[in-house]
Amino acid sequence: MTGYGPDNLPYGVFSLADGVRRIGVRLDDTVVDLSDVDDIFRQPSLNALMAQGSPQWTYWRSVVHRHLDRRIPLADVDLHLPFEVADYTDFYSSEHHATRVGRILRPGQPALPPNWRHLPIGYHGRSATVVVSGTPIVRPRGQLGEGVFGPTRRLDIEAEVGFVVGVPGARIGTADFDRHVFGVVLVNDWSARDIQAWEYRPLGPFLAKSFATSISPWVVPLAALATRPAPVQDPVPHDYLRPAGHGYDLRLSVEWNDTVVSRPPFREMYWTAAQQLAHLTVNGASVRTGDLYASGTVSGPERDQAGCFLELTVNGTEPVKLADGSTRGYLADGDTVTIRGSAPGARGGTVALGEVRGTVVG
Amino acid sequence: MTGYGPDNLPYGVFSLADGVRRIGVRLDDTVVDLSDVDDIFRQPSLNALMAQGSPQWTYWRSVVHRHLDRRIPLADVDLHLPFEVADYTDFYSSEHHATRVGRILRPGQPALPPNWRHLPIGYHGRSATVVVSGTPIVRPRGQLGEGVFGPTRRLDIEAEVGFVVGVPGARIGTADFDRHVFGVVLVNDWSARDIQAWEYRPLGPFLAKSFATSISPWVVPLAALATRPAPVQDPVPHDYLRPAGHGYDLRLSVEWNDTVVSRPPFREMYWTAAQQLAHLTVNGASVRTGDLYASGTVSGPERDQAGCFLELTVNGTEPVKLADGSTRGYLADGDTVTIRGSAPGARGGTVALGEVRGTVVG
Repeated sequence: MTGYGPDNLPYGVFSLADGVRRIGVRLDDTVVDLSDVDDIFRQPSLNALMAQGSPQWTYWRSVVHRHLDRRIPLADVDLHLPFEVADYTDFYSSEHHATRVGRILRPGQPALPPNWRHLPIGYHGRSATVVVSGTPIVRPRGQLGEGVFGPTRRLDIEAEVGFVVGVPGARIGTADFDRHVFGVVLVNDWSARDIQAWEYRPLGPFLAKSFATSISPWVVPLAALATRPAPVQDPVPHDYLRPAGHGYDLRLSVEWNDTVVSRPPFREMYWTAAQQLAHLTVNGASVRTGDLYASGTVSGPERDQAGCFLELTVNGTEPVKLADGSTRGYLADGDTVTIRGSAPGARGGTVALGEVRGTVVG
Repeated sequence: MTGYGPDNLPYGVFSLADGVRRIGVRLDDTVVDLSDVDDIFRQPSLNALMAQGSPQWTYWRSVVHRHLDRRIPLADVDLHLPFEVADYTDFYSSEHHATRVGRILRPGQPALPPNWRHLPIGYHGRSATVVVSGTPIVRPRGQLGEGVFGPTRRLDIEAEVGFVVGVPGARIGTADFDRHVFGVVLVNDWSARDIQAWEYRPLGPFLAKSFATSISPWVVPLAALATRPAPVQDPVPHDYLRPAGHGYDLRLSVEWNDTVVSRPPFREMYWTAAQQLAHLTVNGASVRTGDLYASGTVSGPERDQAGCFLELTVNGTEPVKLADGSTRGYLADGDTVTIRGSAPGARGGTVALGEVRGTVVG
């Protein structure tokens, strides 16, 4: 019902009044305190657990199932960043998003860059500013164009899915995806569109993204999620991107204050998470425990499936109406955005992906 | 004479036969073992020392001066990555480099992007693959263009200077640069130009850079270096980039196998390290102990002052001749590149910046 039944059991890091961080799983509206079960759960982050690898992940899941009695109401705990972020990488793998953004920002040019269908485009982000859901988002200042400095006027979100690496490696083939990736989180890659437009040529987004990236507090193990066939890709990708691996039918929703404004469907993503990891490491680059790589903005073909407000409001020119009657092109101070997700579970039913939330502070 | 006298004393991490990493300073051709002096030097990285801040850095320098007797021949130690890299950022702050690269790669367009003189352009790199000098560089594979996959055919270097953050912060004004930055290293930001040209639009360089970034093993404290006036900037920069802070007269040399092919002058850099740090954090982004930010390729106005081979050989079209009579456009397997540096010392004389070296493995 809640999506947090015994088939989900996502891992998180919490503390009680003593402030000591420890590991638990979420079960309905409670946290199961695992800190007495084993040393591996008496840690301030999931990194040591994630580094153990997939046979051990399976083992711990079976152990956890036998310890579901030590439950603390969710309301009584503080949730923290669940893992130490090593490198943070962000992709750009929704064709609907890339196409719509290309049309809006580079009119008169081909919507998709020529490389888009040949490789999963990505770039590195700032790991220092990956924060847990609920952390206030301070409106960034910066150069908004030539000669203009101040708080961004085009503060946006990007609704994404993040994949968390457990086992280090390099040159990771698509078939080895499940051996390296521990689980998924929801990601809001906050973006300042005016800063971005002015700074991004030729080396890509920098300060437009680096002020904050929010993630959900519960890492849902891959083992909890049903898979689905990967999307059809044309042209056929290079060998190192084959087989494509599987897709996931993750269903997101974006709530702007009290109004659901969009329902981005992850099943529409063009490149799979396995392909993204294979691409990231094909040049010999290594990934470490705690690496976070995000899917890129999840957008579907319809406007109300857009994963960012740049698309939803056509760069602010077609504002959306919220439940209280107000309208928005981009985020106002005091606005709260909540991205929620759920997915078919590996054993049937529905698994909740939790939520990632942030309120804009002026 | 060597540049490693008592006015330099750069910090590094070394081990002896027992393999235990500890901290020392370099004095001439020896390492001064500091591990018995204080706990802060019995660490596998400089991070704890760097986090203490500038008054303590000054104190330790005076303490170290009284313990220069515990010397071990440099030949008897293994040198390691001197600090744990938090976020790695790379700038693009040589006008000579940006102009020449723009002319070569984007002929017919303005050589400098319109934002170049308004902000220090930068992007995030991969911290997992920052390696210490001497680490072999495995030639990366990747997509070299549409439909072409294989080992890069245009493997290049970028001779840069890296600034290492000790004290965390955000919105760091240019006047506070010295309170946050601990010291400098030499950086070789290895680059695959064919991968880069195909992948970099619209989100910037990714796999072309992420396979390896080499740094010198000795971190030269800022306190050891003489400063000089910052370059004249036109237009006058935004308030948050003023005052510009100071420049440094670091003199680099690039040796391709046994031939010095270039002498890049850091004094020619347009944006200062203080401005780069101010820009990096003006949006609210935080830096942490161990953050490494590199200057961008250091190039002077003359061809033989170029900090990369893309410039030096005009993208391989005008090969250079090495001492053994062979010619090169880009790096061949087995080639070794050594970047060295020196600078006027804060107390006069010359301070060595050490070297960063790497050999290409096919």
